[in-house]
Amino acid sequence: MSRRAPGPRARLAVAGLGRMGRVHAENAARACPSAELACVFDLREEVAREVGAQLRAKVALELGQLLDDASVDAVVVASPTSSHFELAAQAAQAGKPVFCEKPLSLERSPTVGLIEEFKRAGVGLQVGFHRRFDPALCAVAEKLRDGELGEIFLFRATQRDKAPPPPEFLASSGGIFLDMTIHDFDAARWLLGEVVRVSAHGERFSEPAYKATRDHHTVVSVLEFASGALGVADTSRVAGYGYESFVELLGDKATVRVEDPYSARYELLVPGSASRPIVQRFPERFGAAFVAELEHFARCVLSGAAPEPSGADALAAFDIASAAAESCRRGVPVAVTHAG
Amino acid sequence: MSRRAPGPRARLAVAGLGRMGRVHAENAARACPSAELACVFDLREEVAREVGAQLRAKVALELGQLLDDASVDAVVVASPTSSHFELAAQAAQAGKPVFCEKPLSLERSPTVGLIEEFKRAGVGLQVGFHRRFDPALCAVAEKLRDGELGEIFLFRATQRDKAPPPPEFLASSGGIFLDMTIHDFDAARWLLGEVVRVSAHGERFSEPAYKATRDHHTVVSVLEFASGALGVADTSRVAGYGYESFVELLGDKATVRVEDPYSARYELLVPGSASRPIVQRFPERFGAAFVAELEHFARCVLSGAAPEPSGADALAAFDIASAAAESCRRGVPVAVTHAG
Amino acid sequence: MSRRAPGPRARLAVAGLGRMGRVHAENAARACPSAELACVFDLREEVAREVGAQLRAKVALELGQLLDDASVDAVVVASPTSSHFELAAQAAQAGKPVFCEKPLSLERSPTVGLIEEFKRAGVGLQVGFHRRFDPALCAVAEKLRDGELGEIFLFRATQRDKAPPPPEFLASSGGIFLDMTIHDFDAARWLLGEVVRVSAHGERFSEPAYKATRDHHTVVSVLEFASGALGVADTSRVAGYGYESFVELLGDKATVRVEDPYSARYELLVPGSASRPIVQRFPERFGAAFVAELEHFARCVLSGAAPEPSGADALAAFDIASAAAESCRRGVPVAVTHAG
Amino acid sequence: MSRRAPGPRARLAVAGLGRMGRVHAENAARACPSAELACVFDLREEVAREVGAQLRAKVALELGQLLDDASVDAVVVASPTSSHFELAAQAAQAGKPVFCEKPLSLERSPTVGLIEEFKRAGVGLQVGFHRRFDPALCAVAEKLRDGELGEIFLFRATQRDKAPPPPEFLASSGGIFLDMTIHDFDAARWLLGEVVRVSAHGERFSEPAYKATRDHHTVVSVLEFASGALGVADTSRVAGYGYESFVELLGDKATVRVEDPYSARYELLVPGSASRPIVQRFPERFGAAFVAELEHFARCVLSGAAPEPSGADALAAFDIASAAAESCRRGVPVAVTHAG
Repeated sequence: MSRRAPGPRARLAVAGLGRMGRVHAENAARACPSAELACVFDLREEVAREVGAQLRAKVALELGQLLDDASVDAVVVASPTSSHFELAAQAAQAGKPVFCEKPLSLERSPTVGLIEEFKRAGVGLQVGFHRRFDPALCAVAEKLRDGELGEIFLFRATQRDKAPPPPEFLASSGGIFLDMTIHDFDAARWLLGEVVRVSAHGERFSEPAYKATRDHHTVVSVLEFASGALGVADTSRVAGYGYESFVELLGDKATVRVEDPYSARYELLVPGSASRPIVQRFPERFGAAFVAELEHFARCVLSGAAPEPSGADALAAFDIASAAAESCRRGVPVAVTHAG
Repeated sequence: MSRRAPGPRARLAVAGLGRMGRVHAENAARACPSAELACVFDLREEVAREVGAQLRAKVALELGQLLDDASVDAVVVASPTSSHFELAAQAAQAGKPVFCEKPLSLERSPTVGLIEEFKRAGVGLQVGFHRRFDPALCAVAEKLRDGELGEIFLFRATQRDKAPPPPEFLASSGGIFLDMTIHDFDAARWLLGEVVRVSAHGERFSEPAYKATRDHHTVVSVLEFASGALGVADTSRVAGYGYESFVELLGDKATVRVEDPYSARYELLVPGSASRPIVQRFPERFGAAFVAELEHFARCVLSGAAPEPSGADALAAFDIASAAAESCRRGVPVAVTHAG
Repeated sequence: MSRRAPGPRARLAVAGLGRMGRVHAENAARACPSAELACVFDLREEVAREVGAQLRAKVALELGQLLDDASVDAVVVASPTSSHFELAAQAAQAGKPVFCEKPLSLERSPTVGLIEEFKRAGVGLQVGFHRRFDPALCAVAEKLRDGELGEIFLFRATQRDKAPPPPEFLASSGGIFLDMTIHDFDAARWLLGEVVRVSAHGERFSEPAYKATRDHHTVVSVLEFASGALGVADTSRVAGYGYESFVELLGDKATVRVEDPYSARYELLVPGSASRPIVQRFPERFGAAFVAELEHFARCVLSGAAPEPSGADALAAFDIASAAAESCRRGVPVAVTHAG
Repeated sequence: MSRRAPGPRARLAVAGLGRMGRVHAENAARACPSAELACVFDLREEVAREVGAQLRAKVALELGQLLDDASVDAVVVASPTSSHFELAAQAAQAGKPVFCEKPLSLERSPTVGLIEEFKRAGVGLQVGFHRRFDPALCAVAEKLRDGELGEIFLFRATQRDKAPPPPEFLASSGGIFLDMTIHDFDAARWLLGEVVRVSAHGERFSEPAYKATRDHHTVVSVLEFASGALGVADTSRVAGYGYESFVELLGDKATVRVEDPYSARYELLVPGSASRPIVQRFPERFGAAFVAELEHFARCVLSGAAPEPSGADALAAFDIASAAAESCRRGVPVAVTHAG
């Protein structure tokens, strides 16, 4: 009988084992053909041990161990936002490519600093804008690029969360534009190019949790693209019914909608009404996208190609979100500066 | 055999027999249980004769004839917008209640004047905001009023026309906000109460027909309601695929969507895709609403009740549309003055 | 001012003012451009008077009055099935074309007799198989005839009623095949031509109401067409959720489905599920078809053309339904005799 | 840094690397938490080497090697049907539990023999009826068992394949009932219990490929359940539009439908119509079910529990399919014998 023939796989370490960190660890261990899970790390040692045992990965007790480990090819940073900068920067200095959850930072200056750090280190940085890997959005992007939709006049996005996160998370979330709408801003840029001006608006109900942070639970952002097209994104943390992400492109040849908020293939008919179950949380909606983004990263690690979306993409989306937050606060449209 | 027992019906005259005038004439003649078509009038005499013959109604050769006719209980004004003021004012002076297509006028001052004219004459004025009579929107309004949706955070509307009207109509249309979005503004007020500020935006493609009039083919309007809720309406004249009207209310107990842009109950499955026909023009979408609004008018004529939506509703929607047009032109949010 | 110019309309009398009789009376009075309601008749005089007053039609106190009335051009027979034969035969003898609700009779011999009666009298007979006038099925029929579907391999139909009628009606209904599935049998013949053999099956739950009449509340009928195609129709009186009619044609070029059981254009989203209202009764589903079938009849009355579906169509569908009932009873497939 | 902590996984070998074999091999290697891919085998050595390299599994050059390998806990048999018996029997004799693709055999006697072989060997046998692991059908089964649907009157299933397999496969497929409808027969038994009689019918078009084998490309099977309920399944190999599997349970409390033939979450709107992509092949529709059935098998291997669906389930579905084929041939209903 022949010997095991190992295929080439990128050996990934996952640092931070919260909800998204576990998703990435599982995907590295099982779902991505080009990846394997080499090692996991979390400040909560027992969490790291549990995940490591379950997924048969080594457990690093300190970040240094993980970065020194020659059998770790690259690092997935999925820790709380406040530690993204430090973990990613150290990984860059250790010469390891990084996949980092968004946002890189809640501030512009560290975001810029991190991008420069990776440039200096000459290693790749991919940001967790998973929409770019959603099969439906990818099909739409292909139709757009093939000219099937013609010229685009309007980008429209809706994003809904079932319920707001706990107050302590809200306070450190950076606000709804940076926490949620940023995914729509990135999708907008990815599909239609640069945004030059944003005008944003929030509801004016006075719930303490939002008041304290000048945040809103429901906002509308109007985007003006360099192309002349318009964009509009509504975002809400209080939809109640479940999680939903909708994107539409209105083109002069065709219009396309990514929709379908249902979570299962069945319909229940009772006297007077027919109902379908709705997706409850975003990992349910974007499961395939999470696999695909990590597989893309793993392939870039193996080939040495620069992964996308890049740090520059993260900065551009950050700038739109910041402009939206400022517009919402000041009540006037705000231009988006393009540093690049 | 017993004699014919005539039920009480309002005898309506229709002045102006373009597309909407014909719809109203047919509905008066056939579809509305409380109405009958007494008389038709159009400046194009042959059109009036043709419609009169088809629907078995008298034909007035001058407006005066129609207004002097004691067998005419009330008048439906469906002529071009520029003549709404004169026809409606004369009918009021003749003591006839009027159903007038929107907008009453392209200017504020005649709109206000007309309302006063009807107040002086003591006769009813109903404006053609047919959305309020759409069965689906009525069901939604009922759920809202019953508290089934809870508090509303967001009103969202989409309106799409297949293709822009001819340039000559565009020039006299009053612009997209006054011509199209005004229906969403009225629906917004009807469902959620007063709008206090509008921020509107247009695409910046340079098509001559729009340039000349500083109009846009695609616009987004953000509404701030007195309640604190947000609203957003996107409107486009260049959707290509057909006509569509979508309305959503996001509430803290439930969310409801009026959607379903399909024009028939069948689905065609060919290799690789399943397709449904789409509604092409608004009369197809709102046929039942046109019958219901005229039936409501006829009943008010018979009972003497004040019909709704009233002249004041027309003025309020006009003010929102004007504010939107100004916001779009000036690039800043504009407050909506409430005259009342 | 010119005089009223009456267009040519067929003056219809409606005999029998139960649920369907009222629908036809209203449609004649209001909805059908080529019809007007001349007269109504019902054994229950107060019902006739009420409908007559409401729709401004004369009221006949005896059938003879109605048949003698020279201002009645044709008769709509919508009385209980047991009186179809007598009313229709008398109308034929009086030289009046007849629109008769299905079935002409619960027995074959009077059905044949009635057809001969009309042949002798030389007047038209249309049977109330309204499916042939449903806009969605008409669109499907057109696609089929245009060759867009290719050769058809399978006809599939589902018909569901919310709840069974009261036991006394069940006993005189002729059974589920003759009462309900007959509409699918007629649609099958209309679309795909003659049926040569039927194999039918019923559930075997023992509810007294059905036991007494050897009827079933849920049945499946398999059809073999002369073309070689297969057909299958399931029918149930106990669906609970509402009324539904589904038809599918599986063709070698395309497949088409008439579906959409929803009764309104809105969707309600609550925690975990999205629901739509369902059609509750067949008049809601087939309202447009009822108008169209009567309009077709009125036009044939005016032009003298032979209306369709004809008495021969009624007989053919009766024969399929009888064969189905026999197959279901005997447990073997039964050939359909074609008398014609 | 701690050592790798291997979780308990069943080490599976896959014998036969056609379409389904590769799916199982991939799932064992990547998707199933309780499985790992120990070894692959195919008569075409180069295929085995390629899959082994890709999935990093050992490659067995003969079946004996695989069965002798102590590091192989269980065997997945996915070879052509004609070799199922031999491979499965040898594995049983070697004491390895087997997951075998359906059907176990095209004949009854070897099917029974195989079941006895496994009983003698005292090892588990699971059959590839993947429907039982489809998330939507599982949700339906749960509702059924919880009494949410009430008593079931009708089971309805539709199964469609885009195009028939090549003639050479058709000839050895065992016919459409044993090849395709058997999945619906198994789902019917699983959900509603035993079937006592079948009546089946085939279209009568004369295509040589089917004529030769007395097979049909489109069939309808009517099932009578011991409970008194009815069932109907239509199956076609020539749907053209794609692959589809539909199941409905009509209950006296609620009705449920597993539907949704669309393959992506987007809708494309072009002038006049809105279209959605359709699932093209069954692995696309049942991907999650294939993972879940193998995971179930792996867990049974680890725990020693008897896996389901069992050999007895395979025999019962075989008997229904045989009765359907006989009914279709003879033109009469055929009783289903229950050996058990």
